[in-house]
Amino acid sequence: MSLRVFAGAPGALEAGARVRLDAEESHYLRRVRRARDGAAIEIFDGVGGLWSATLEGGDPKASVAAIIDAVPLPPPPPRLTLLLGLPEPSAALQAITQATELGAAAIVLVRCARSQNTHPGPARVERVLRAAQRQCGRPLPPHVEGVEGPLGLAEALAIAADDPGYFAWEALRGQDAPPPRVSAGARLLVGPEGGLTRPEADQAAAAGLQPLALGPWTLRTETAALVGLTRLLFAP
Amino acid sequence: MSLRVFAGAPGALEAGARVRLDAEESHYLRRVRRARDGAAIEIFDGVGGLWSATLEGGDPKASVAAIIDAVPLPPPPPRLTLLLGLPEPSAALQAITQATELGAAAIVLVRCARSQNTHPGPARVERVLRAAQRQCGRPLPPHVEGVEGPLGLAEALAIAADDPGYFAWEALRGQDAPPPRVSAGARLLVGPEGGLTRPEADQAAAAGLQPLALGPWTLRTETAALVGLTRLLFAP
Repeated sequence: MSLRVFAGAPGALEAGARVRLDAEESHYLRRVRRARDGAAIEIFDGVGGLWSATLEGGDPKASVAAIIDAVPLPPPPPRLTLLLGLPEPSAALQAITQATELGAAAIVLVRCARSQNTHPGPARVERVLRAAQRQCGRPLPPHVEGVEGPLGLAEALAIAADDPGYFAWEALRGQDAPPPRVSAGARLLVGPEGGLTRPEADQAAAAGLQPLALGPWTLRTETAALVGLTRLLFAP
Repeated sequence: MSLRVFAGAPGALEAGARVRLDAEESHYLRRVRRARDGAAIEIFDGVGGLWSATLEGGDPKASVAAIIDAVPLPPPPPRLTLLLGLPEPSAALQAITQATELGAAAIVLVRCARSQNTHPGPARVERVLRAAQRQCGRPLPPHVEGVEGPLGLAEALAIAADDPGYFAWEALRGQDAPPPRVSAGARLLVGPEGGLTRPEADQAAAAGLQPLALGPWTLRTETAALVGLTRLLFAP
C-alpha cells in the first residue's frame, strides 16, 4: 500500500527538491507505518498535486524526503455534492470517508427532522478527511460544509442548486428512472437513520430533486450515500 | 425506524397467529429498542417472509406478538456474488454488512496474497448478518462461504462460474467498458488492503473475469465492494 503524507506548507513542489516533514507526518511514517530510509512515499503538496519521493532520513520528528516527480492524476470526475442528513456521528464519519474516496466534490451536513442532536466536530472531520486522502491518493479533500453547525434543509437545498438533484426515497424503489449521465455536476440528498420524513421529501421534490431508488432494501444512511453517489458517478 | 425481530423457529406465519419471541429478541425489543406493548413490529419468519405484527406483552424474556399480515416484498434483485479478498476483520464485517443491505446473494471470503492471516469468526459474521437484516428488512441473509476458513482464489473463482465476473482493478481505471445489464447473476472480486497482486489479476482474467473501474481514486476494500456491486446492480 502506498505511503502518503502531507507537506507542511502548501505549495507546488518540484523534482529534485527536498522536503522536511512535520512531526505528525514523520510520526505517521516512522511509527505507524514503520517506513525506513529509502522507502518510496508520496507527498500531497496541499494545492492539488501528489509527488513521488524517497524517504531520506532526518530527525525522527522531522523526516526528510527527496521529491522524484509528479504523480499523474486522473481527470476530475463530475462535481458530486452529497447533502448528508446527519446520522449518528460514527455513521456520518463513515459516509464522509467513503464519499471522499469516491471523489465527491462537496459534503454538506444537514440537520434533518430525524437527525440526532449531535454531529462530528471539526477536528474529527479533519482527521477523517486526511485519513481518507492518505488511503485513496486524492490530493484535495472535498469541501465539507456545516462542520461548525449543520445546515437546515432549505439552506442545504440552495447549494449547487443549478446541478440536477436526487434524493434517496425508498417509498419509490423500483419505480425511478435511471439518472441520466452527469455532465457537470449533481446533488444527492440522503436522510438520517429513519430516512427523510414525508414533508422533507416533499420539500426536496419542490426544490426540483428527483427520487432515486437504491436497491431492494432499506439502506443505512452511510450505505445510501455511497450507493447513490455511485449511481450518479457511473450513470450511463 | 422499523423494529424487526426473528421468529425463533423457522416456518411460515399467518395473519392472526400469536408468536412467542425468544429471550434474545425480547431483550432486543424491550431493552435495546425500548419497545412497549402495542408497538408495531415486523417479524422475519426464517423462510423468506416478513410479517407485520403488534407487540402484545408476555414475559420480558418471552414477549408475545400478534401477526397482522405479510409485508409485501420487492422482487429479488439479480444474483450478485461478492468474492471478498479478506481485509482486516472490521473492514470485512463492514463489507458484509453493506453487501447484505444492497442485496448480494452470496459472499465468499477469499484468502488473497495481501490478506492478513485473520478473519472474522462464524459468530461475529452471524451477528453482523442479523443486524444488517434488522436494519434493511431483508428476510434471508446472503450465503456466506469461507467463514470456517477462507477459500483460495482458484476455489473462489469456481463459484457461480457461469455468471459473468468482474474484478476491481485500479490500474485500468477509466479504461473499462461499462458492464452490461446483469440479467441473471454476476460476480465481483475485490482485493484486500493493497489490492490484488498482478498474478491474482492475471488469474482472475484467465478465469474470464473483466476488469471494472471504480472511480478516480484508490478505494478501500469495503468501499470497493459496495461501489462495484452497485455498478453491477444498476448496470444500464
